[in-house]
Amino acid sequence: MSAQRAVRLDGQALVTGKAQFGTDVSIPGMLHGKLVRSSYAHAKIRSIDVSKAASLPGVKAVITAADVPDKRFWPPILDQSLFARDKVRYVGEPIAAVAAEDEATAEEAAALVEVEYEPLPVITTIDEALKSDILIHEEKSPYAPDESLGMRNVCSYSMLKRGDVEAGMREADLVVEDEFEGGMVSQLYLEPHAAVAKVEPGPFITVWTSTQSPYNIRSDIAQLLDLPASRIRVIGTKTGGGFGAKLRAIIEPYCIILAMKTGRPVKMVYSRMEEMLGGTPQTPLRIQLKTGVKKDGTLLARYIKVLMDVGAYAGDGPVDVNIALLIAAGTYKVEHVYAEGYAVYTNKQRCGAFRSVSAPQATFALESHMEHIAEELGMDPLELRMRNIWDDGYTAPWGQRLENVGLRETLRRVAETIGWGAKLGKNQGIGIACGITLTAAMHPSSATVKINEDGSVTVIVGAADSGTGAMYAGLPLIVSRELGVPLEKITLVPSDTEASPYNDGAQGSSTTYCAGNAVMAAARQARQKLLEAAAKLLEARPEDLEIRDNAVYVKGSVDKALTIAEVVEKTHYAGEEIEGRGSYVTSFPPYDSSSISGFFYVPSLIDPTYTAHAALVEVDEDTGSVRILRYVAGQNSGKVLNVDGLAGQITGGVAQGIGFALYEEMKVNEEGVMLNPTLMDYLIPSAVEVPKIDIVLVEDFTGSGPYGAKGAGEAPIVPPPAAIANAIYHATGFRARRIPITSEDVFNGLRGR
Amino acid sequence: MSAQRAVRLDGQALVTGKAQFGTDVSIPGMLHGKLVRSSYAHAKIRSIDVSKAASLPGVKAVITAADVPDKRFWPPILDQSLFARDKVRYVGEPIAAVAAEDEATAEEAAALVEVEYEPLPVITTIDEALKSDILIHEEKSPYAPDESLGMRNVCSYSMLKRGDVEAGMREADLVVEDEFEGGMVSQLYLEPHAAVAKVEPGPFITVWTSTQSPYNIRSDIAQLLDLPASRIRVIGTKTGGGFGAKLRAIIEPYCIILAMKTGRPVKMVYSRMEEMLGGTPQTPLRIQLKTGVKKDGTLLARYIKVLMDVGAYAGDGPVDVNIALLIAAGTYKVEHVYAEGYAVYTNKQRCGAFRSVSAPQATFALESHMEHIAEELGMDPLELRMRNIWDDGYTAPWGQRLENVGLRETLRRVAETIGWGAKLGKNQGIGIACGITLTAAMHPSSATVKINEDGSVTVIVGAADSGTGAMYAGLPLIVSRELGVPLEKITLVPSDTEASPYNDGAQGSSTTYCAGNAVMAAARQARQKLLEAAAKLLEARPEDLEIRDNAVYVKGSVDKALTIAEVVEKTHYAGEEIEGRGSYVTSFPPYDSSSISGFFYVPSLIDPTYTAHAALVEVDEDTGSVRILRYVAGQNSGKVLNVDGLAGQITGGVAQGIGFALYEEMKVNEEGVMLNPTLMDYLIPSAVEVPKIDIVLVEDFTGSGPYGAKGAGEAPIVPPPAAIANAIYHATGFRARRIPITSEDVFNGLRGR
Repeated sequence: MSAQRAVRLDGQALVTGKAQFGTDVSIPGMLHGKLVRSSYAHAKIRSIDVSKAASLPGVKAVITAADVPDKRFWPPILDQSLFARDKVRYVGEPIAAVAAEDEATAEEAAALVEVEYEPLPVITTIDEALKSDILIHEEKSPYAPDESLGMRNVCSYSMLKRGDVEAGMREADLVVEDEFEGGMVSQLYLEPHAAVAKVEPGPFITVWTSTQSPYNIRSDIAQLLDLPASRIRVIGTKTGGGFGAKLRAIIEPYCIILAMKTGRPVKMVYSRMEEMLGGTPQTPLRIQLKTGVKKDGTLLARYIKVLMDVGAYAGDGPVDVNIALLIAAGTYKVEHVYAEGYAVYTNKQRCGAFRSVSAPQATFALESHMEHIAEELGMDPLELRMRNIWDDGYTAPWGQRLENVGLRETLRRVAETIGWGAKLGKNQGIGIACGITLTAAMHPSSATVKINEDGSVTVIVGAADSGTGAMYAGLPLIVSRELGVPLEKITLVPSDTEASPYNDGAQGSSTTYCAGNAVMAAARQARQKLLEAAAKLLEARPEDLEIRDNAVYVKGSVDKALTIAEVVEKTHYAGEEIEGRGSYVTSFPPYDSSSISGFFYVPSLIDPTYTAHAALVEVDEDTGSVRILRYVAGQNSGKVLNVDGLAGQITGGVAQGIGFALYEEMKVNEEGVMLNPTLMDYLIPSAVEVPKIDIVLVEDFTGSGPYGAKGAGEAPIVPPPAAIANAIYHATGFRARRIPITSEDVFNGLRGR
Repeated sequence: MSAQRAVRLDGQALVTGKAQFGTDVSIPGMLHGKLVRSSYAHAKIRSIDVSKAASLPGVKAVITAADVPDKRFWPPILDQSLFARDKVRYVGEPIAAVAAEDEATAEEAAALVEVEYEPLPVITTIDEALKSDILIHEEKSPYAPDESLGMRNVCSYSMLKRGDVEAGMREADLVVEDEFEGGMVSQLYLEPHAAVAKVEPGPFITVWTSTQSPYNIRSDIAQLLDLPASRIRVIGTKTGGGFGAKLRAIIEPYCIILAMKTGRPVKMVYSRMEEMLGGTPQTPLRIQLKTGVKKDGTLLARYIKVLMDVGAYAGDGPVDVNIALLIAAGTYKVEHVYAEGYAVYTNKQRCGAFRSVSAPQATFALESHMEHIAEELGMDPLELRMRNIWDDGYTAPWGQRLENVGLRETLRRVAETIGWGAKLGKNQGIGIACGITLTAAMHPSSATVKINEDGSVTVIVGAADSGTGAMYAGLPLIVSRELGVPLEKITLVPSDTEASPYNDGAQGSSTTYCAGNAVMAAARQARQKLLEAAAKLLEARPEDLEIRDNAVYVKGSVDKALTIAEVVEKTHYAGEEIEGRGSYVTSFPPYDSSSISGFFYVPSLIDPTYTAHAALVEVDEDTGSVRILRYVAGQNSGKVLNVDGLAGQITGGVAQGIGFALYEEMKVNEEGVMLNPTLMDYLIPSAVEVPKIDIVLVEDFTGSGPYGAKGAGEAPIVPPPAAIANAIYHATGFRARRIPITSEDVFNGLRGR
């Protein structure tokens, strides 16, 4: 691994416990807020009686839908309100909120709010929803499929096609068909949602919140509360993990309304159970795959159908559906593709984004399907992959010409490292899987780099750091390299909608790529201005100058120099500042509009990150339990900027991927009640279940990110469920159709049940 | 008065008491700091014993010079340390600081610090200082005058000349000579210095402070604590008045060092007595004037000498000296000028800037001297002024060609309004005086104007608001006018070194001029970008579009429009932002370097603000007390942007000018001990002493400020002492040589004592 080592500018604060997370924010005079949640999955609200709650000593406000504007949010469907108005659609839906002097009183008051319900039939599965007479949402979604299909409760339809799938199937020597499922999974960040709102007359609103995107939060608040965005200041605190669940306003608007009502700042922090009931977990899905293949292993045609169970509100469902379609159509060459997807409402919790949305599940489906094809062909599954794997120059089904793929080399090295083909022990098996992460390279990002009058540097960028270090370790490295200023003199301004230029947040592994490109451009402009200012003072031409050791020298001269501080101070004094501004902007990928229909939006396809993983497992025949003996994670992240940070991301991502594979699922019963909403019931891998991860990095310097860097954070969560499922198959002959694959599943599978 | 009326965006918060001033900042876990001050005016420090203080329960830290880097600050002389090291130079000089759980404990602990002194001779007057064997500063100032002059304890020398003064004096029919003095005056802002510092490991420092210049404070902290400026974030709170005394780090570094020592946030708030002892009041000065004049009143030559008593540290003294020289050489045409000035150390409190530095005193001297000349010539003093007054096209002694003077018209209208020449009652007299305020138009200022996705506008500008409203009322008006967006949708980001572009603060009446020009340029760029983005979407050319009612229309079309919100949202979505950036930058005034020597720096001479005031007074012969019966204040502020704000500034400035004229002086005895450091002893005018002010505004739209606006805040404090002194003379024949002119002075003057 030939790459730079970085320090995190926030490292010392983090390890000494001094960093301020959302939960740490405290303002004198602050009240505490709590939500009152629905106990029914589907019911009309007959009445709400807040009188007992309001008269509890210490309670300062109780609010319901009547106290907020009747506005909706969460693009693209805009079907969510702050409070249920006429009916509730899931267990846990907010109905009212209280503010009290302390959290215990707020909780007590919340329990005193009396809601009278008229229960409605509860729909908890995709199949029920599609056929039901009951509509969960009476209002039709703008992206609903054609009514002639007779599909009920569908909030969005997406379609992508290339070539002629039916013709391709006819040409095929063999057609293989499969169906797979993935469950609902919690992001389970350590720090729950936490925010504090302070309202000054005007109103001028300040919100401190643990978020991945201060600008998204601001936009949501403006929309929900019908206020100008300019009057809302969102300051991002440190974020103790987000994984996609801290991209939209979950608790902030409640804090604001309560603060407006009471005239005092209001803080709200979710408990773990509130996170489980009121968060936005990974959306469950079902995926059908049908592939036509030649005897020699050439893939000819693929049909894909995704049915996504978005829960009671659309959330990111429509986006997640089309990403699932792209993933299932990816990483292997197939001429003819037809992919259709549907987001379906049920009376379950609303869902959202989770680290590389849809990809762990869709990749589990695709890579299990590839193994099935290899089996049917009697071909080594590695050979089948190598025969079809994407290379530079191939045009993906969505019309993008691929560059810097590096997947073949990554897969080759991963297979070599795990010892593919070696003789294994009893009940042992090796599984491999490839992955693509559609990093969100279309997120606009701007940055300002100010060189201060003492030669130190302040970087202002709208990026947020959800904990990965992409912001506080990666971006300063770029500035240091461009300006020749040591890291100790560089500071990044935390995300703040009033301090930072527009940016839509830490999502889609976009920080290094988008914010990094913006910061690089800004640093280069600042450097140029510095050289020009120094040139005037030194009576030289800018191109004859060089920067080293915090000073600007005339090239080749030892004496003729000014420190950076001197140049800036003199320039300030003359009425100018040394400041660079850079933007990263890109346009949408070049879809052929005849090849898509319905809702179609993809963050970006520029320089995706590719992965190949391999797992060696051993299965206990008597119990069905799976032990991962060895794990190899290969990744082509372009140029590696911060090798320790990348290794951390890969290790964490694989651990979460193991959770997806073997342990994690939020279970909901027929009444729509969650069965495991606490960490006593919800199973996650512990240090015992996560083996040491061997990391294989394939570098590449030709991409369009800074020095060729690609997004890194999401990619490693993608292949583990597939690699582990395939390893279980090779160890036992049991092919899992669903993740998580529990010991019970394996036990039953081995016994043909 | 034909001008616009404005609202202050912070008005509602201010009048409801919700605005957060420095004194209001509160952070959980915060300690309170107090300084230990010298009780001697000049003494060696033999020892400091902090043991008793440190062992007091509740005390968390006691620090002295040994705990801070040995660094100096306060440009241009850099002679001040945080704590006295070897000796103390004034009563009140900081020696140590303590931090404790509450303010009372901190105060108790401060009193327990034991300092052993070895007293040195105390110098309290300019005359003593110039001749003394004792040096207050052993180190020689870089701007000290030539040693051959034999002047001791001088920290700076400044000289300006034009023509040949001696030849001019020889040609004169009459030479008139005078000497005047002005005392030390407190700025007496309502809110004392108040700051809170929080230090996170790194260190990363955040300071909330009541300041006029977050960037200056940051720069001072970096210098004094030897830290990169990029690690220091200074956030300006609301400021309850500053008048020049909140431009440099007075208490912030102590808070930081105590916070570093204790690991807890530290707050410090000055008491009124600490303000009086440890603030930075108006510097006392003595000024000699000698003018050669022809019989017809033509001024031929003027010699000016200023001796300024800067106290124990130079502070702004060197700057104030040369501003006093320019003022005394100003507003009337004189061909030959020689002006020299000296800043002299004494063992008194360090001084600083006060609203229009040096000008009330220098103008008192100049305008009293003009009256004396008129008297000697037997000429009407108004006529003498009108004969010599500056007009457009005249070249000031410092080489600047004048434009937009408007002084003749202002003086004419003021004289007319007060009824110059009318018959008055017994012991009544009218005095008139002109003034020039060298507004600091050289302060660089940049601004960003962001149009948000809902059509609201965020303005980020490094300006600070010291309470005048120039920022929160004036700047939004400019943006509203340029973008056609109503004020309700516009927000200004409070000053913050991490949010705001570089700016050196609210000083020299520069906000409307410098920040206003920057904001106007930024708004125009944002407007242009908005039109370009809308043009793409509407398939039109930008020049064919217009903005009205929050929307962009094709000119002449009623339908073809997009709301501003739609344009911005679509543009964000395509990866761009609608943001304008503007800078105001100017170059130094064109001094002829052969005409100046020593320290010479003048904020700016672009578009100064001119004033003419007139006072009608009545003097009580028996007591010497002076009553102001009528007061007319005329001002040429260019284009008036906010007429209520300007009227407020004029009223307040005249009230403070009356204080200078008749009441205010900080008195120090021979031991260097201040005699009146509380509001029980220090006299200021109350509502009874301030008459209703008649305001005469002379508008002018040709200047280089926004729409022709000039700086407004400082100008009205300038002429009152001169106008009132001249009125007393006309009422009684008593010519005051010193301000404040107390009743006792008048009483004694009338009796020839």
